[in-house]
Amino acid sequence: MLQLKKIDHLGVAVSDLNQSIATYRDKLGMEFQGVEEVPSQMVRTAFFQVGDVHVELLEPTSPESPIAKHLEKRGEGLHHIAYEVDDIRAALAEAKELGLQPLSEEPRPGAHNTLVCFLHPKMTGKVLTELVEHTAK
Amino acid sequence: MLQLKKIDHLGVAVSDLNQSIATYRDKLGMEFQGVEEVPSQMVRTAFFQVGDVHVELLEPTSPESPIAKHLEKRGEGLHHIAYEVDDIRAALAEAKELGLQPLSEEPRPGAHNTLVCFLHPKMTGKVLTELVEHTAK
Repeated sequence: MLQLKKIDHLGVAVSDLNQSIATYRDKLGMEFQGVEEVPSQMVRTAFFQVGDVHVELLEPTSPESPIAKHLEKRGEGLHHIAYEVDDIRAALAEAKELGLQPLSEEPRPGAHNTLVCFLHPKMTGKVLTELVEHTAK
Repeated sequence: MLQLKKIDHLGVAVSDLNQSIATYRDKLGMEFQGVEEVPSQMVRTAFFQVGDVHVELLEPTSPESPIAKHLEKRGEGLHHIAYEVDDIRAALAEAKELGLQPLSEEPRPGAHNTLVCFLHPKMTGKVLTELVEHTAK
């Protein structure tokens, strides 16, 4: 089985990043940690901290972005749960072994110096699940 | 603004609780903490721990359950994010003040000796948001 250390972040698809930043910062009162573009996912992300978990708002930067497709199909809302693992390559091998259908053969670069890999949502109760290794602390 | 202490749990709508328990316990490797029925929400829940956050799987016990309606409309998947607050009544008053549209006038009993209140998803980027106070530790 996988060795998930903790929930790393929750991904939320949004159509207007600036407006959503205002809601999460000024109404929900979460600690805003800045914006980062992630070219590999074609998104602009805004990170917030609550406890030791992050909430990541995701706005597409291209119509080809997976987030653009999510917005088109399902609208705004929760997009994925990301779990921290110690060793993304070991987790990826174990996930394959378990039939959890990783969406890429190799980990890809994520926001904040991470390597990430998604698992097919049909294997996890339709919850898009991401594995994250922090490569620099 | 709200004073959210941490993410308490993530709610995931499932159509077959036993099958999903097997996936989360035996493949994702999360610590299974048992099943509890929550009559006020018309659901059977299974709780898992990962780090200091819980994942709550929700299976409807009635076609009138909000989870039954979610399954019908959107299928299985992520349903809500719950944040812990110290004082649910103070948080509810503040949420009203901020225009976050609580879905009930008063907090209701949740699983595991909690009082809970949901906020209207249209106010939080289409993410159904729950506030939770633990009334017994």
